[in-house]
Amino acid sequence: MTNRAHNFNPGPAALPLEVLKEVQEELLDFKGSGMSILEHSHRGKDYEAVHNQAQALFAELLGLTPDYKVVFLGGGASTQFYMVPQNLITGGKKADYVNTGSWAEKAIKEAKKFGDVALAHDVKASGGYTYIPTQDQLKLRPDAVYLHITTNNTIEGTQYHAFPQAPAGVPLVADMSSDFLWRKFDPRPFGLIYAGAQKNLGPAGVTALIIRQDLAAKFVEGLPTMCNLKKHMDENSLYNTPPVFAIYVTAKVLEWIKRHGGLEAMEKRNLEKAKLLYDTIDAHPAYFKCPVRKDSRSMMNVVWRLPNEQLEEKFVKESKAAGLVGLKGHRSVGGLRASIYNAVPHASVKALVDFMTDFMKKNG
Amino acid sequence: MTNRAHNFNPGPAALPLEVLKEVQEELLDFKGSGMSILEHSHRGKDYEAVHNQAQALFAELLGLTPDYKVVFLGGGASTQFYMVPQNLITGGKKADYVNTGSWAEKAIKEAKKFGDVALAHDVKASGGYTYIPTQDQLKLRPDAVYLHITTNNTIEGTQYHAFPQAPAGVPLVADMSSDFLWRKFDPRPFGLIYAGAQKNLGPAGVTALIIRQDLAAKFVEGLPTMCNLKKHMDENSLYNTPPVFAIYVTAKVLEWIKRHGGLEAMEKRNLEKAKLLYDTIDAHPAYFKCPVRKDSRSMMNVVWRLPNEQLEEKFVKESKAAGLVGLKGHRSVGGLRASIYNAVPHASVKALVDFMTDFMKKNG
Repeated sequence: MTNRAHNFNPGPAALPLEVLKEVQEELLDFKGSGMSILEHSHRGKDYEAVHNQAQALFAELLGLTPDYKVVFLGGGASTQFYMVPQNLITGGKKADYVNTGSWAEKAIKEAKKFGDVALAHDVKASGGYTYIPTQDQLKLRPDAVYLHITTNNTIEGTQYHAFPQAPAGVPLVADMSSDFLWRKFDPRPFGLIYAGAQKNLGPAGVTALIIRQDLAAKFVEGLPTMCNLKKHMDENSLYNTPPVFAIYVTAKVLEWIKRHGGLEAMEKRNLEKAKLLYDTIDAHPAYFKCPVRKDSRSMMNVVWRLPNEQLEEKFVKESKAAGLVGLKGHRSVGGLRASIYNAVPHASVKALVDFMTDFMKKNG
Repeated sequence: MTNRAHNFNPGPAALPLEVLKEVQEELLDFKGSGMSILEHSHRGKDYEAVHNQAQALFAELLGLTPDYKVVFLGGGASTQFYMVPQNLITGGKKADYVNTGSWAEKAIKEAKKFGDVALAHDVKASGGYTYIPTQDQLKLRPDAVYLHITTNNTIEGTQYHAFPQAPAGVPLVADMSSDFLWRKFDPRPFGLIYAGAQKNLGPAGVTALIIRQDLAAKFVEGLPTMCNLKKHMDENSLYNTPPVFAIYVTAKVLEWIKRHGGLEAMEKRNLEKAKLLYDTIDAHPAYFKCPVRKDSRSMMNVVWRLPNEQLEEKFVKESKAAGLVGLKGHRSVGGLRASIYNAVPHASVKALVDFMTDFMKKNG
């Protein structure tokens, strides 16, 4: 086997090696059944146990009360950009959205096709997605069905460190694709959370949704069955064949989180990794520049610039040759980015900062 | 390792052992990259090669002309039950559907939410889904945007052996989920084909679509982006993160088909397996009864009854204990069913007919 790469991909992203080894070990024969998990019926007892375990682990790790239901769907978070407003504001009802980045923008674009969508705050209007607005910057409508936020902005490297307070009776709805389960948080203000798995939870191919029953009671009727979120809740995500393998790997990642100390331990590890990287950037302000306002920096996606684009290109090329993968910034913003999700080991971040310091010395 | 089960699951279903071994072998390190395929970016060169190879193999095996585009989406064939009519008949346009089984019924139910849907023939009206209508039984509208068929009825065990002829200028649209690639066919009458992978193509989590450009030109505008089939065609199924792993395994299954003689060889093998099973059923008409009209029998899903339900229960239980998995008929129809897709070896069908004969002798 080749040495394992230091994987800073933004998603699909690094998975825990322990999980990959388990998957490999049981790939031909799942629990003595004589069949791969890929060949098991989604209506059989073996898969059912995996499905229910994945849901139970989400509930346990997050401390969910029983009025929340965990749902698994295909189609990515992009599908939820339309399904969530389709279920909640079809017919011109109101929803407020905070625009903090490119993915929030996409969510807003889809929501506008269904109802009365207003921007509680538009970071773009400031010229660049470099911060998360504070509570007093938000213009909130008390009669909105929900307030939508994107808790971490993968491309721009910004993240909410405290969630906004919505008006009384207005639930938060959040796209947590790139920072779900990075640490513990209070789920109670949230009526609905959705997250594509391929960043912090598992492989591409499944989206996890956490939906509170009282919000589900507001879902509209008459939608195509596959768009009907209530149907998926009622059928325990088994209305049709779910993405079995992606859920199976996600269950293993959740077990891994639990085995390694739960969300408290994840937070500690993640903060240490992020500190190591941001400290390196801040220690050399003439060479490394993080465009994000300090109070809004993401602990999952760290973005920075070098003195010029030629050096950035060189950095990407040479880091790759050194076994550091995925450091090129998103094509829409340029620069450099390291995605340091739960499964990225501290040693990878250490290798990165060593490479950065070395690169600076050679190309100063 | 436990002995490999004889897997007759209706889907997710058996996969070729060769494919599973390849997946296992490279699970920790895809092509010397130091990363699992599960950790590769969908925008990277390594995955791109897999993606394009899967498309190219579909085109090669089916003999598609360049005016067809292969698209991969999540959400299962059930998602296409609404996306296809949403893209083609929104606003009250016409489509004809042939109702040949439970899945066709579901497709019809969703299509009615978008346009003027008429039943070209309703097998259900005859009392049971036991046959495929002949051409002269179809009532076809020359101004329909398309004629929809379900080429194989997984639950009821019926299958088209010749496809219907639509009126001039009306393309066929087909759900081929449970018999896609079971043999060669002429794709030219088809404007659009969709198939959930988890029966004949690969694992659950991806749906393959084959779309002809002239039909795509009729797609409506203004849909949510993820519902916009033209968008997925234009973006080469990379508008958002595709279900990477499911596409990767599907590519391996397609390679396996090619390596083992292509669709001609698959057809030969499949016909031999089906003959062995149907011959056993027909040889003992007092004990085994296939409810399907002979000319409409499926080569993929073989259904039969025993003299009574108690015996059927016993059969399911004892066959399972003997390592024959997935023989229980669908909960909506009862009886027994063996799904004998491409990847089910002849030896499994042989084991099944031996078990059947033996069971009959003991419980005659």
